[in-house]
Formats: sequence, structure tokens, C-alpha cells
Amino acid sequence: MSGALLDVALVHYPVFNRRREVIGSAVTNLDIHDIARTARTYGVRRFYLVTPYEDQQQLVAELLEHWLKGRGGQLNPARKEALTLVRVVPDLATLYQRVSADRGERPLVLATSAREQPQTRDFGDIRRQLRAGKPAMILLGTAWGLAPAALSGVDAFLPPIKGAGDYNHLPVRSAAAILLDRLLATG
Amino acid sequence: MSGALLDVALVHYPVFNRRREVIGSAVTNLDIHDIARTARTYGVRRFYLVTPYEDQQQLVAELLEHWLKGRGGQLNPARKEALTLVRVVPDLATLYQRVSADRGERPLVLATSAREQPQTRDFGDIRRQLRAGKPAMILLGTAWGLAPAALSGVDAFLPPIKGAGDYNHLPVRSAAAILLDRLLATG
Repeated sequence: MSGALLDVALVHYPVFNRRREVIGSAVTNLDIHDIARTARTYGVRRFYLVTPYEDQQQLVAELLEHWLKGRGGQLNPARKEALTLVRVVPDLATLYQRVSADRGERPLVLATSAREQPQTRDFGDIRRQLRAGKPAMILLGTAWGLAPAALSGVDAFLPPIKGAGDYNHLPVRSAAAILLDRLLATG
Repeated sequence: MSGALLDVALVHYPVFNRRREVIGSAVTNLDIHDIARTARTYGVRRFYLVTPYEDQQQLVAELLEHWLKGRGGQLNPARKEALTLVRVVPDLATLYQRVSADRGERPLVLATSAREQPQTRDFGDIRRQLRAGKPAMILLGTAWGLAPAALSGVDAFLPPIKGAGDYNHLPVRSAAAILLDRLLATG
């Protein structure tokens, strides 16, 4: 287990749809499983799902019940172990309260973006901060990305992930894996 | 577009199930989308699906038809662009023939494994080989990983992806993203 104090949040509201309208997106089963497994692999402390919708919160509660207390976790204990990281919060204000309480101070809040942003801290910089024991958290946007209203508590952006050209349509699940590897890999 | 001559193959047979029996796995819609998008981001040349089952090959053909010629690609051109990389082959022998023909020589064939293997080449080594213009391809296993019969044409293994401890249950979609970032990222 890494000593890094890193939390990750997947934001379902407020985000953009493909026409850059502000929407709330549906929670996706596979986002939860994939990001939880990656988070567990890299020693992330908690994986938060941010959604204001009670039906969506209920869906997640049922999924977690199946894996943490029911048949799922008996058949696949590794999956159960990953899903113990998952927490649901209704909004970003609650997210910041919870994480600040858990970490004993307000974490550095980092947003991700597929585009260059003015306030950017590079991966090496954040990696050093984490190694020095300072808490940080990463906001990941679903759908077409975090809307401006999601950015009021954000301290800085991580750089966009550059592949080999201008194509920047990584799935959020893959982006999360790459970010965590860049910040926390020990190998 | 990177100059790297890298192809990626997702192997559905022969792989292990959770009891380490050799099986053929079902093609998963989301594996195709996620790995194609990541492959396109990093300038991978082709993304091969290896499955001997005609019904599975037919499923992939229908999915590609929808995205490359039908409504899907009109609504989401970026997705269409990623899925142009996808090819289906029935077995590994056909895979090696095709890739060797496309690249003009047999590529270095690299397998992935969640465990340490005797014949391992590190990421920096393969990264340098790709930068020097030499072709390589990566075999990714579905289900519980590549069975021994899938390894007869393999030249070496990539190192297991180390996170922050002993937990090594990354989704293949996330492992693919991390591997490609380590081998091909330019940022």
C-alpha cells in the first residue's frame, strides 16, 4: 500500500453533453468497476461517485450490496476488495467536506481536462507532493467533461494526456488508469 | 501520428477462466470501444480481436457496420475514427501473418502478464525499439489471462504493471491504457 493520500471522484453533475449543454449523466456500472480496480491497484484511498440523483445513488447502493455483502464478493474477492473504496456523495461541497475530514486538511483539488488549461501543474510536481505526504484529490468528468460550475473548488488542472497526435477522446476509465499510473506507479 | 509501428491484439482464445481452465471468452463491446479509443490516441496501427467463433466475429462485424457505415459514426465521428483500427482474425497464426505482411517483417511479439515472467523486456527497452522504427505487437489476454498455448509465438513479456502493492487485478482495458502510455506517450 502506497503512503500517498490521493482520493479520486467521478463527477456525474454538472458535466457537458456533446452539444456542450450542462447535464447530469447516468452512473455507469463499468466506470465503477474499472476505476475502483485501478484505484485499488494504485493505493488510492477512496473512489467517490458524485451524483445528486436519488435513483442513481440507490443503484450504486444495490451494486455495492451485491459485491460487498452478497454473492458477488464470494465469487470474486478481488472485485469486492476494489469496491470497498467506493463512496457516493450528492455534490461537490459534500465531497470536499468528507475528504477534508478524512485527511485532516483540505486536499489539493485537481481537475482533468482534454484541453490545455491556464492553471496547470505537471505530473512530476503532483507526484512529488504526494510522496511528501500531502493530500490531493482528482476530479474526473463523465460525458463530455466537467462543466464550469464544477470548477469553483478546483486548485489546478492536470495536463491533458497526450498520445501521439491530436486525437483526444480517451474513455474516462482509460484516462483514470493513465493518470494514476503517472502519479503513483512504483515500478 | 506517431511513427511507431505498434499493433495490439486482444485474445479471446485460448485464455484461462477463474479456475485456470482453458476457455474461449466472449467478445465484450466495451473492450472494443475503450481499447480502440486508447489505441487511436497513441497512434497504434491496428487493433486486432482474436476469436475463432463465427457468431462472435459476426457480432463484431455488425458493431463495426453501425459505427463505420451507419448511424453511430454520423453522431460520433471520433468514435468512428477509433473503430477504423479494428480487425478480426480467427487465430494467432493468422494474426502473425497479417501483421508481418503489413509491416514488411515479423514484429517483436510481446505478451502481457500480471505475474513476473522469465523472459521480460522492460518498457524503456521496447520504447527505444519502437522509436528506432522496429515493429512490435502486444498480445492482451481477456478473462484470467493468456493460456500457455497462446504463448508459442511470443518473443518476450512486458513487465507486470506494479501499482502500490500486491493487488494486480486491473481490467484489460485499463492495463492496455497504461501499457500504451508507457510505450508511446510523447507528453
